[in-house]
Order: sequence, then structure tokens, then C-alpha cells
Amino acid sequence: MSARSSRVTSRDVARLARVSQSSVSRAFTAGSALSDEKRARILEAAKRLNYVPNSIASMLITRRSNTIALIVGNTDNPFYIGVLKEFLAELQAGGRQVLTFVVDPGSSSDDVIMRVLQHQVDGIILTAAQLSTQSTSLCRDRGIPIVLFNRYIPRIETVAVRCDNAGGAETLGRAFLAAGATSFAIIKGDPLGTTSHDRVQGFRDALWRAGIPATALMEIEGGSVYDTAFAAIRDTYGVGGEAIPDGIFAVNDVMAMGAIDALRFELGRRVPEDIMVAGFDGIPEASRAPYRLTTMVQPIQAMVQTTVGLLIDDAGEEGSDPPKIESDIILDCKILWGATLPDAAA
Amino acid sequence: MSARSSRVTSRDVARLARVSQSSVSRAFTAGSALSDEKRARILEAAKRLNYVPNSIASMLITRRSNTIALIVGNTDNPFYIGVLKEFLAELQAGGRQVLTFVVDPGSSSDDVIMRVLQHQVDGIILTAAQLSTQSTSLCRDRGIPIVLFNRYIPRIETVAVRCDNAGGAETLGRAFLAAGATSFAIIKGDPLGTTSHDRVQGFRDALWRAGIPATALMEIEGGSVYDTAFAAIRDTYGVGGEAIPDGIFAVNDVMAMGAIDALRFELGRRVPEDIMVAGFDGIPEASRAPYRLTTMVQPIQAMVQTTVGLLIDDAGEEGSDPPKIESDIILDCKILWGATLPDAAA
Repeated sequence: MSARSSRVTSRDVARLARVSQSSVSRAFTAGSALSDEKRARILEAAKRLNYVPNSIASMLITRRSNTIALIVGNTDNPFYIGVLKEFLAELQAGGRQVLTFVVDPGSSSDDVIMRVLQHQVDGIILTAAQLSTQSTSLCRDRGIPIVLFNRYIPRIETVAVRCDNAGGAETLGRAFLAAGATSFAIIKGDPLGTTSHDRVQGFRDALWRAGIPATALMEIEGGSVYDTAFAAIRDTYGVGGEAIPDGIFAVNDVMAMGAIDALRFELGRRVPEDIMVAGFDGIPEASRAPYRLTTMVQPIQAMVQTTVGLLIDDAGEEGSDPPKIESDIILDCKILWGATLPDAAA
Repeated sequence: MSARSSRVTSRDVARLARVSQSSVSRAFTAGSALSDEKRARILEAAKRLNYVPNSIASMLITRRSNTIALIVGNTDNPFYIGVLKEFLAELQAGGRQVLTFVVDPGSSSDDVIMRVLQHQVDGIILTAAQLSTQSTSLCRDRGIPIVLFNRYIPRIETVAVRCDNAGGAETLGRAFLAAGATSFAIIKGDPLGTTSHDRVQGFRDALWRAGIPATALMEIEGGSVYDTAFAAIRDTYGVGGEAIPDGIFAVNDVMAMGAIDALRFELGRRVPEDIMVAGFDGIPEASRAPYRLTTMVQPIQAMVQTTVGLLIDDAGEEGSDPPKIESDIILDCKILWGATLPDAAA
């Protein structure tokens, strides 16, 4: 776009505030030395002139862009929308700009990473998407930290912030057992994602430790979203299909909602009277009156703050390296008792 | 972040591809003259060296950043999440980056605009948020076009892309009348937004033209989101409350979902047997089995493509002015017959 000749410059502000141009520049740079009186005078002048500092110029000086790239897969799962909203709010409150990219569920984010690298970004947050070792090393060579959110990627040396997926799913498995279930189904998500994998594993472990035979658990591909989970349950248990089990665990809430609706509206079953259901994530939609889903709540806000803290602490130091933390940061999740799987201990 | 000394530059690529540095620069600039053979050789060399052009430098030369700022209010309404996803997909496919900002529902986007202006952006898209004349003129002075999405702002000279909200609501009003309704409620949204205002007005017009007295319509503040609409219906029609009308029109789908759940789970009413309900927007969630909502579908994809076309056509010309279109661009919306309000003509 053309900058009009009428554009106000720092020179105009300096003249009005009776300070040097470098003082004007310092007034718009976080943490730089300037007396309160002088800063107030400069901001007042800037406001009167509608002056906005050009961050491109200041970026070339500081080598910092205050911009974070956020790459999100599976935006059809409301959990990741909640995550996106929380990241935007947190980063915006911290004075950061967010370049947002979406990738198709399960697909690689390598193309997007190549595009991100054409921009000056201070860090990259990646959630629900794949990443190659080549992309990781490109970012490392440029000193740009990457933090993975809600999943890790095997064989990629990048810090991940997530909750205890296996432990949470094992707790839900024990809750089904305590409520008297003896036959089970599990609705799985993204086959390439560690999140679904770990939750499946945790649930299996609970059954195995209770002496339940592997034949008592049916595993169903649910496609991570509502529509595919709805269709999977309808097709698996419809006319001439499998016997309906005592309990269904969906590895995320939105698939649990699809399962409940298929059970009720396609198969004429009551939840929880005929069959118990639990999910994982704690999305607000699943707590609404038609569902009141028993689920494992992920501490989104704490996970987001931890992730942002890793990038911003790191980016705060001039010439610093990517986060030094070698292992994942794993936060606790917490069961929310709804109506779809009762608390046997209550 | 520090750029490592090992960073590959265009000089390295030029040497390996046996071309000049300016050829390397041209190879990464859309539309610049270069033979196919030379371009291929340069891209091959760039790939081998893991070279990524620095877009900051190219931006300073072209004065174009290929970046669009997207400002979204009311992210608690899934309609705007659908809009956000569609914009990200459309702009990303067109090679644009998106700086995303959220603002609180109903609040002004002036602070965010000031932040956007610190960056080199080619255009601004604003949806579900307020805007002052001061912000508008700041953007105009800098030659940065703004397009409003799904609302206009009275007294602000900025092009808006939206659907025929008043006409759509009037059609729904006639549908309630055709289905035999004689008493009505309308659940209103953001009191400052033109979208809610125009839908309310269109619905009122349908009743007025049919000779229905104003006393047959109750107007309820629904707060634009699920939870507040749920509570409003529960509280308005609960024990000792108002008589339940024949039909409720919620100005958006997510409030219609809240209303239906409150009617069913708090007030023990059947939809549509006891009371008919319609919404507006056409979000996928409202078409699911528990709701099957009759609604007016907004053509999100066409609206998004129109909006992006205005900005990109405009930004495509060096030194061009903001869009010349003086009036709003209004697309048609289309009724989707669900189960909550039957088609009397069918």
C-alpha cells in the first residue's frame, strides 16, 4: 500500500514533544530507559498527531517482531477452537501479534513452516498437526523455538505441553469398571496423533489391570470429529450389527457427542440407562443440557500460559536458543462427573 | 531471535545456481520476469541449500506485506468461528498471511486497529466488532482498506459484505405465520450490532404486514450466545412467568439452540409440538439430530470470497486507494427447513 505524504513521522512527534527523535523511538520500545515525564509528554504528542510507530523499522533494529506463528490442525474439533481463542487472548494481552495458519487434520505442517520462515517470527506454536525433522531443524538453524501443544511427535526433539492423556483415560476406564461395565468400546481419533494413541493406551491399561479380557473391548475409528463418530456408531451398532456394549469411551468430547446422538436418535438407546458414555477434553458444548457428559477436563488456560511462557521467556533474551527443556511438560487433567457415566463412589 | 551466522543468503543461492543475486530475488517475487529454465535452477539451488527468502526485505522493496489483519468479535458464536476458518483457508490458499486479533463482543476495535497499524498490512477485515470514525480515517490516511463482514456501521464510510438480514428474517416471520403461529417472541443479539437490529426489524415487518398487533410479539435480550439465551428463556417463561408463545425466532442459531434446550430441559416443552423455533446463520451444530433447526443459511463461502476479492484486487495495484465501492455488498440467504418450524407449503 502507498504511505501518503501526510503520514506523521517520529520527527513530527519529537518536534511537538520537544525531545530528540531517539527519545521518541525509546518511548515505543519496551524496557528502554526514559523518564516518566518525558515518556508521558511523547505519548501525549503521539496521540494528538495520531502517530503510530512503524514496527518494521523497529524490528530491523531489535531483530524481534513480537509475532508468534500459531499453526492449528483439526479446527472441526471445538477443543482446538477453544485453544485458538485462548492463545489469541493470551498472546494479545502480552503485546504479541499472532500469525494464524490452519492445516488439514493429520496433514503435515511443513509447507506452512516454510511460509512462516519467510517472516520474522519469535516462535512457533503447533497443535494437532504433524511436523517433520527437516522442518524442526530448519527452525533450529534460524533460532526459532517451536512448542508443540497437546501432542508430542516421536523422534522430534521439540518440547511439548500437554496433559496426562494416558493417566486421564485410565481414570475414566476405572470409572466405567466401578459403575459396573463389563463390555466396552473405544472411539479413536487421529491415527497419527499421540493424543488419541495415549488415551487409547491408558484406557486399555485400566481394563487389563482389572483382568478384563481384550475381547471385551471393541475399537472403532471415529475420525476425530462429530459427523464421523456419529456415522461410525450408527453403522457399527445398527441393524444386523454388533451387540451394544455397557460403556463407550470416546477419546474426545465432540466424538462422544456424536456417539450419544447416534445412540439416541438412530438406535433408540438411552444414555446412561442403556449404555454409559465418557469423553475427554472438557469442551463447554459437552456440558450442555442434552449431553451433560462425564469427561476428563484439560486445563486449557494453564497449558496455554505454560506454552506462551516457554516462548516469551525464551524470546525475551537477545540471541537466545530454543527452549532448553528436554522433556515434555505434562499437566494434570481432572474428571468432571456428568450424567452419562455416574460416579460410583458418590 | 538471532540469525545464526550459518544462515543461507541469496548470495549463496546465486553462486550455486550461477545467476545474479537479483535473479534470485526475482525468482521469489510473484509476476517478475525470469526464464523458466533460470527459475527452475534457482529454486533447485534454494531447495538444496534450505534457503528461504526473507520477506521483510522484499516487503521494504515492494511496500506489500501479503498480510491481512483479521479482527473477530464474539468468538463464542460458532458462526464467527466458521467465518474465521473460512477466511484463514481462503487467504492462506491465496498466499496471504493472516494476523488474527480477537476483541470482546460489542467492544470497540480501536485499540486493535492501532496495533494493526504498527504492522505492514495490505488490508483489514473486521467482523462482529465496533469501529470508530477516527480508526477508519487513520486507516484511510495510510491507504489501508477495511472491509466489514456481516455488519455495517452506521455513519462509517466503509464497504460491508453481508447477507440480506432483514429480508431473511421477514421470510422466517412469514413461515411462522404460514405454520399457524399467532403469538411470538424474538431473542435479540448484540444491541450495538446492525445484524441483530436488521433481523429484528425484518421479523417485525412480517408480523406488521400480516396485521399482527405489536402486543403479540415479546422481545427478549439473548446476549448473542448459548448460555445467556438459555437463561433468558428459562427465566422469562419459568414458574410464574410469561405465557409461552406459539413461535420463537432467535436472531442467531446458537441462541436458538439455547432456547430449545431451555424449553425442553427446564420447561418440559416439546419443539415443535408445543412451540416452534427458528434461527439464523446455518451453523452445522444446529442441524444435528437433537436440534434439526429451521434456519436462514448465510452463504459464508461466497461472502468470504467476496470480501477477500475486494481486498486483494485492491491491494494488487501499487499505491491504490481503498475500495471504491460506495454501498454494501448484500448476498442472498436461503431457508433451510428443519424440524423445529415445518414448511407449511410442503
